Amino acid sequence: MSTATTTATATATAAASRGGDLRVAVLGVGVMGQDHARRLSTRTAGARLVAVSDVDAARTRAVADEFGVRAVHDPFAAITDPDVDAVVIATPGFAHEEQVLACLEHGVPVLCEKPLTTSAETSLRIVRAERELGQQLVQVGFMRRFDAEYQQLRALVASGELGRPLFLHCIHRNASIPPHFTSEMLVLDSVVHEVDAARYLLGEEITAVTVLRPRASSEAPEGLQDPQFVLLETAGGALVDVEVFVNARYGYEVRTELVAERGTAQIGLGVDLVRRSAAGWGGSIPRDFRERFGAAYDTEVQRWVDAVRRGTVDGPSAWDGYAAAAVCAAGVESLRTGRRVEVDLS
Amino acid sequence: MSTATTTATATATAAASRGGDLRVAVLGVGVMGQDHARRLSTRTAGARLVAVSDVDAARTRAVADEFGVRAVHDPFAAITDPDVDAVVIATPGFAHEEQVLACLEHGVPVLCEKPLTTSAETSLRIVRAERELGQQLVQVGFMRRFDAEYQQLRALVASGELGRPLFLHCIHRNASIPPHFTSEMLVLDSVVHEVDAARYLLGEEITAVTVLRPRASSEAPEGLQDPQFVLLETAGGALVDVEVFVNARYGYEVRTELVAERGTAQIGLGVDLVRRSAAGWGGSIPRDFRERFGAAYDTEVQRWVDAVRRGTVDGPSAWDGYAAAAVCAAGVESLRTGRRVEVDLS
Amino acid sequence: MSTATTTATATATAAASRGGDLRVAVLGVGVMGQDHARRLSTRTAGARLVAVSDVDAARTRAVADEFGVRAVHDPFAAITDPDVDAVVIATPGFAHEEQVLACLEHGVPVLCEKPLTTSAETSLRIVRAERELGQQLVQVGFMRRFDAEYQQLRALVASGELGRPLFLHCIHRNASIPPHFTSEMLVLDSVVHEVDAARYLLGEEITAVTVLRPRASSEAPEGLQDPQFVLLETAGGALVDVEVFVNARYGYEVRTELVAERGTAQIGLGVDLVRRSAAGWGGSIPRDFRERFGAAYDTEVQRWVDAVRRGTVDGPSAWDGYAAAAVCAAGVESLRTGRRVEVDLS
Amino acid sequence: MSTATTTATATATAAASRGGDLRVAVLGVGVMGQDHARRLSTRTAGARLVAVSDVDAARTRAVADEFGVRAVHDPFAAITDPDVDAVVIATPGFAHEEQVLACLEHGVPVLCEKPLTTSAETSLRIVRAERELGQQLVQVGFMRRFDAEYQQLRALVASGELGRPLFLHCIHRNASIPPHFTSEMLVLDSVVHEVDAARYLLGEEITAVTVLRPRASSEAPEGLQDPQFVLLETAGGALVDVEVFVNARYGYEVRTELVAERGTAQIGLGVDLVRRSAAGWGGSIPRDFRERFGAAYDTEVQRWVDAVRRGTVDGPSAWDGYAAAAVCAAGVESLRTGRRVEVDLS
Repeated sequence: MSTATTTATATATAAASRGGDLRVAVLGVGVMGQDHARRLSTRTAGARLVAVSDVDAARTRAVADEFGVRAVHDPFAAITDPDVDAVVIATPGFAHEEQVLACLEHGVPVLCEKPLTTSAETSLRIVRAERELGQQLVQVGFMRRFDAEYQQLRALVASGELGRPLFLHCIHRNASIPPHFTSEMLVLDSVVHEVDAARYLLGEEITAVTVLRPRASSEAPEGLQDPQFVLLETAGGALVDVEVFVNARYGYEVRTELVAERGTAQIGLGVDLVRRSAAGWGGSIPRDFRERFGAAYDTEVQRWVDAVRRGTVDGPSAWDGYAAAAVCAAGVESLRTGRRVEVDLS
Repeated sequence: MSTATTTATATATAAASRGGDLRVAVLGVGVMGQDHARRLSTRTAGARLVAVSDVDAARTRAVADEFGVRAVHDPFAAITDPDVDAVVIATPGFAHEEQVLACLEHGVPVLCEKPLTTSAETSLRIVRAERELGQQLVQVGFMRRFDAEYQQLRALVASGELGRPLFLHCIHRNASIPPHFTSEMLVLDSVVHEVDAARYLLGEEITAVTVLRPRASSEAPEGLQDPQFVLLETAGGALVDVEVFVNARYGYEVRTELVAERGTAQIGLGVDLVRRSAAGWGGSIPRDFRERFGAAYDTEVQRWVDAVRRGTVDGPSAWDGYAAAAVCAAGVESLRTGRRVEVDLS
Repeated sequence: MSTATTTATATATAAASRGGDLRVAVLGVGVMGQDHARRLSTRTAGARLVAVSDVDAARTRAVADEFGVRAVHDPFAAITDPDVDAVVIATPGFAHEEQVLACLEHGVPVLCEKPLTTSAETSLRIVRAERELGQQLVQVGFMRRFDAEYQQLRALVASGELGRPLFLHCIHRNASIPPHFTSEMLVLDSVVHEVDAARYLLGEEITAVTVLRPRASSEAPEGLQDPQFVLLETAGGALVDVEVFVNARYGYEVRTELVAERGTAQIGLGVDLVRRSAAGWGGSIPRDFRERFGAAYDTEVQRWVDAVRRGTVDGPSAWDGYAAAAVCAAGVESLRTGRRVEVDLS
Repeated sequence: MSTATTTATATATAAASRGGDLRVAVLGVGVMGQDHARRLSTRTAGARLVAVSDVDAARTRAVADEFGVRAVHDPFAAITDPDVDAVVIATPGFAHEEQVLACLEHGVPVLCEKPLTTSAETSLRIVRAERELGQQLVQVGFMRRFDAEYQQLRALVASGELGRPLFLHCIHRNASIPPHFTSEMLVLDSVVHEVDAARYLLGEEITAVTVLRPRASSEAPEGLQDPQFVLLETAGGALVDVEVFVNARYGYEVRTELVAERGTAQIGLGVDLVRRSAAGWGGSIPRDFRERFGAAYDTEVQRWVDAVRRGTVDGPSAWDGYAAAAVCAAGVESLRTGRRVEVDLS
């Protein structure tokens, strides 16, 4: 442990002392991983992409060539590579636990895409491993925390100007989802963002979850419970309702309305160019999360690089990943049983 | 009964034949009744206010003088007055049943402010009395049906263009309420509007109600459960959620978002004059329902007068009043028990 | 004169004393006149349409039948009819002078659609005739003064809260115009509304006009100078710029932005139902002025009826009609010469 | 010349071949220069700030220390420094000509803040020097071209979907300006952005300028002609009007509305968090251009670095700087004479 801590510090110190860039490997180069590889290569100051890794060897090769970096087949070889200072994990969720634990073992700072792991138990294991290590090395990819509007909303809540929060009304709509998406994944992969956002915005833990199942859209694949309506209760008694609808067809839309004792606030209205034509007045809707949250991802990665170079981590922690996993696990249970399920984060 | 029917028809015919105005009495001249009296006197074509009635004799006198009409102490005398063609009821809810039944008995067309009565049973009694009469004489004062935005939204749903409705997300906020307001009244007096609006917009009956109780606002009177979050389920499986918050302090706000299979629509955004100054950019918020729905009330009364003069009624019916009362009664039960309560409108 | 005055007062008094409605004749029943006929028949309290008149006898007959009123071929017969208390003039502009003067001669209150007359000289003649009469009988149909947003904007200017006005930026777009529309009519028939609105909002006379001619739209008829850009200078030094574009194709749009020393304000944004679908987010655009200003017309006519029944007139006066005519005449000269033209309203 | 060209290419090639960062010096480290220094140090990939220079030695020292780079007193020493690959000029406008020419002489790529120079003649001198050199080394800091909304608007114009452009209505407001600001500087320092934006959006040169002087705001310093209203005519006959108001008090606001033959489009509406409270509904207004265009500056510098590393320049050129200077010079003449002034860009 203390060795690992020393290593992490040493890494950052080494990079800083030689004025050098943080050398980063990206594990998993599907859509998200390629995005991160491009970001690190072309829009992040102080970092350098040095290696990519993926179970698909051809894809690894192609991405490595595109960015002029090394292709490393074994993700664990990338983690332990002495020429790699830090790692971004964008592999499928089931692979996260082992990879993050390897990072902890070798003292390698890691930015892990959400979910931290696929169960509350395995996420808790990471929390404990990191706690034993005595140094924070894990950041979880809840990029909304780096979106300017979420930050404004949080500051407004924290200022107390509008009184205590009573509700968060959340909308989370996707145009469509991949064919393998299951009803549980609406909770685990989509609502997980609102779970973290609610904790971030309100500064309170979530204590109970209820998932309601309205009529399924005929635009959704047969058998998929889409949309869902999720109710989250917080320790302080605020109520968070989330409409999640992943086959909304018309685009990607994420909005949140805070209702507090003396006022309300909305983010995610998404106004830029407004046109008037024979079709009426209005604007366009983002196609997907990368269009809506592209700048937030850029900021997330830049701040992570800055922090790691200073020998620290200041983004969403392993605990944040665990808390979200525990709430989502309860959500899946509620989806199955139709009942309210309490969450115990002790 | 058939006599009454004849009378009603005769009344309208008489008014039409002599090209005369519909002579209207307003029962109950508190805030709402005075509004109606003024409307009938100054902004309604084809109608003439001829009498007002209230339990408060001084108030009756003052309002009668203001509009130059007769003050009638006994509301039943006004209903049976041969010089009164139709009646508007704006008395407290508990007085409605007896007064509406008297109108039915004497064949007098009546526009009754919501709620039709204070219980599902008594509302059903009116439905049955009118059905036996064989002619529709009762219209219930759900004025939102006469608001241009609600009408646009309903037309959009009915067009089928966006597919089947999945959700209605409703916001109902008042700046403040009178001191006598109870937790039950949030359901009975406020949410009753969303109950009717949901039925009107979706064209489906409501089959179950759940009332959730988040943290009460410290701006609300001690002991009042404000805000509340009400879930309505429709026969077709759509989910209607209603935030009702009657001490929101900052003003009156009623918004609705429809979510359908291929698109969404919002009403109630309330943009008129937008200013930019040292305080930022933005606009003002209506203080109360009369400011927000003033035009809808005007339209409601004008159409009711037009219809009555033609010898008919085409607004929200006694059945609509009954359905709302039954749903709200279930809501009050849910508020008390914390449980989901089913509604049977057979 | 004093006779006429007496008559007018007598008319109103008579109507009031017998509790009777104001009996109105509409002269000219094209699109606008029919609108007014319908309004007076179905949405105006205290008034009764009793006669219509038009040069087109068949049309007069049809409209008279529709509303169950008398068809009067000769407009002057309608004006002098003892059973007509007041007149609405919606005939073509060239007919206004003679008809309004006849109203003045016979002491008949008149609501005259804009323009008051087609030249500054003839409008001034009406101003003088009315002045000699010693009583105001003429109201000009500048309906924007009855639009709630214009009224809010005027109140904001008058409050002085934002400091002195510096600019009004005005947009006036129509989807299309009838085939006979000329370049001059953009000034005389369209910009005339902004001329009155500027005077109403700013409370200052206009002292100079310049009309600029950008590239004509290829969507406009060959030879029509459409759009135009009109600059109005006020006595106090404020600058009013007006984009007038009558073949904008996509709909009717009227917006105004006030710029004052310490803040700005916009009206005419036109937000009601906002939808999101595959076409993006947005709303619909009014097709024409009746859709945008329908409520303002209703209010204009109701207030005119109310005032006339009280024996007075309180809307835009003959002077307002004259001032607008003088400014528009200068505008037409500027359109022809390309030069700035000063206006002298002495 | 050919030597210089070779050097530039060599520089870029060298940087690329060793995978190294572009080494940049910033000349002038007032507010804007410090912004660029911070940007290059912390948010730009592939670049490294290596030196800063300013006439104020103490400031140079302080900024150099903050970013851990060299302080170079003589700007020309920085330009010719073999360890400097490229230069950002943020010195006062009068110093630009000599510094940019030195860059050209030594084959150093340069990003020069607007204005390119303070007169059309000197800007043309740079255009010619670069033309003789046979390679583009100069980019002018018109950052709006890198703002996402401007890019969307340009793409919409270029698509031809709305037909030919007829108007651009532009708003350019600052909360306040430094004490030394003169009436001419409203044209030279503020409107210069609209001049470039109009050329960028419409793809046409500007052929005439007229500056109108409405009443000056009493919030502006005595003697300053603020606001102004500037009319730009394009080669194709489109009309661009610009309200420039640099003491608008309430904040920074830049908006543009395109009016084309079949539709319109607006940018700069600036909606993010919208709140409702006792003060009404609305949002905040950016305080200054850095808040509004911060992301555009980031993108501008990142793209410039990317291009220079590839051995090219692809942003606004010296010609763009010259064209803007020529139009603004004509604007100053119009401001003085009150007359329309033609622009000849041959």
